[in-house]
Amino acid sequence: MPNMSLPFGDDASAIDLGNNKVAVVNMDMLVRKTDVPKAMSLWQAARKAVIMNISDLAAKGAKPIALLASIGVPPNLTETDIQQIGKGLNAGAREYNTYILGGDTNEAADLIISCTAFGVCNRSHLIKRSGAKSGDYVAVTGSFGKTACGLKILIKGISAPEVQDVLVDSVLMPNARVKEGIALAKSQGATASIDSSDGLAWSLNELSRASNVGFCIDYLPIASEVETFADIHGFDSVELTLYGGEEYELLVTIKPSRWQDAKKAVESVAGNLTKIGVVTKEKQCLLKTGEKTVSIEARGWEHFKTK
Amino acid sequence: MPNMSLPFGDDASAIDLGNNKVAVVNMDMLVRKTDVPKAMSLWQAARKAVIMNISDLAAKGAKPIALLASIGVPPNLTETDIQQIGKGLNAGAREYNTYILGGDTNEAADLIISCTAFGVCNRSHLIKRSGAKSGDYVAVTGSFGKTACGLKILIKGISAPEVQDVLVDSVLMPNARVKEGIALAKSQGATASIDSSDGLAWSLNELSRASNVGFCIDYLPIASEVETFADIHGFDSVELTLYGGEEYELLVTIKPSRWQDAKKAVESVAGNLTKIGVVTKEKQCLLKTGEKTVSIEARGWEHFKTK
Repeated sequence: MPNMSLPFGDDASAIDLGNNKVAVVNMDMLVRKTDVPKAMSLWQAARKAVIMNISDLAAKGAKPIALLASIGVPPNLTETDIQQIGKGLNAGAREYNTYILGGDTNEAADLIISCTAFGVCNRSHLIKRSGAKSGDYVAVTGSFGKTACGLKILIKGISAPEVQDVLVDSVLMPNARVKEGIALAKSQGATASIDSSDGLAWSLNELSRASNVGFCIDYLPIASEVETFADIHGFDSVELTLYGGEEYELLVTIKPSRWQDAKKAVESVAGNLTKIGVVTKEKQCLLKTGEKTVSIEARGWEHFKTK
Repeated sequence: MPNMSLPFGDDASAIDLGNNKVAVVNMDMLVRKTDVPKAMSLWQAARKAVIMNISDLAAKGAKPIALLASIGVPPNLTETDIQQIGKGLNAGAREYNTYILGGDTNEAADLIISCTAFGVCNRSHLIKRSGAKSGDYVAVTGSFGKTACGLKILIKGISAPEVQDVLVDSVLMPNARVKEGIALAKSQGATASIDSSDGLAWSLNELSRASNVGFCIDYLPIASEVETFADIHGFDSVELTLYGGEEYELLVTIKPSRWQDAKKAVESVAGNLTKIGVVTKEKQCLLKTGEKTVSIEARGWEHFKTK
């Protein structure tokens, strides 16, 4: 096995290109049955397949430069359906100034959209999952919980007129934090990074495992629409925020001495970086709100139950 | 769209890395229903998914340096089955001195193995499908027809004791012509190249389309085992040789002035390069044997009918 710039199990893989450059590559498969709620169009599903892959590059600080897509097409799809998939793939790629360079289509039992995203990065800028150190700040690029609410609306038919569009959109039209990831990498302030596609709680636990540290979270980045939705229906907004998934914020740790630089770097590309806690020596993930301390469990992210 | 070193629809895609280097990347999906005969083990299917992808890189003259694999796993597979898939992927990669760097597993309705192969190549060495010129020689890196016979044995239960193992092996344990492809690229004698995974006839027609030329084939590279098999059962060995598929030889065109260099380059890596005809101005693919001239049709390669 060659000297790997990113270990197995990180968000993406890295291939050494020489001259301190690495190719950062990621391959994620979207399967209709588990990853596509019924309300999501084929165009949106294809766009999401791109976002999923680009987000993992963003978490490593790599700029996406090309994508490939391999599609498994079930017999019931029409020519128009396949065109919609092609358009969705291209739309997702163009939003992040990149391109679908190639791929293939195949017969399959269910719709599968397998993408590969390619990026490049200075080797020294690459942000692994494993670099968090006790005392580092923990930060996120946005708020959480919207997709958990959006899925309840889409799958269980729960309504919430005021905030419904925002919550549903978070599921159907996710975004990747590419600008933020590149800015963080260049700022050299980030010690570890992961995308939150498996939910905030899961991602914290994964970063804890990879860096062999713990977290004490003292500010939970709950989206305001999540508070509204939880209030209307009597849900627990903390639960919705921690144990969701299919959201593509970055969860990062930052050297305290570089916090201002990192925050400014992200803000300079019109992003946000919010401190939510600190890295601890003891390997556990805790949420401290006021007097109360609870454990953040390694769960979240259940596949859409469309059956 | 950026300036593309390889056009859409070529065997693989190319990403410019600067300094006259390109990354050559390819993504092909193996679907059990259409690509895996029943007699093929999961280990062999996974290995084949790697070979399929590496072969397209070989056809462009690129050395494979890394692979990713994304697997769709149907509910009836066991943990042992999934391990066999992992082992088959690694075995295929190791045969070509490369590695599986990452990937993911997903629930799916049928077994899907989607791989991405990455290679590097000097931009000036890259061999497209589109460079064949009238007067060039047409050549192949091996003989044809074994897989068409092997599939008849596996799917239709036809037997052929003497040659059975060779023919069946050609289906279950295919090989990619990586050394040959790299040697051809370095020799700078090849003007166009394609892998023959869709069969010899189909590949000739595809090269004809991409290069806007025709071919006159005067020597058909029939494998000796194919002659034996055809004799036993009264099949047409020409049909088996032209209209098979799932074989991974390279079909190339060579500048006549560079023929000896190209042939020596391939032989220096223990390969073979056999001249089978010439490139013609008129855009048709013809087979001339003795007095007889027939058209080589753009057909071949039917998916395995395992149902």
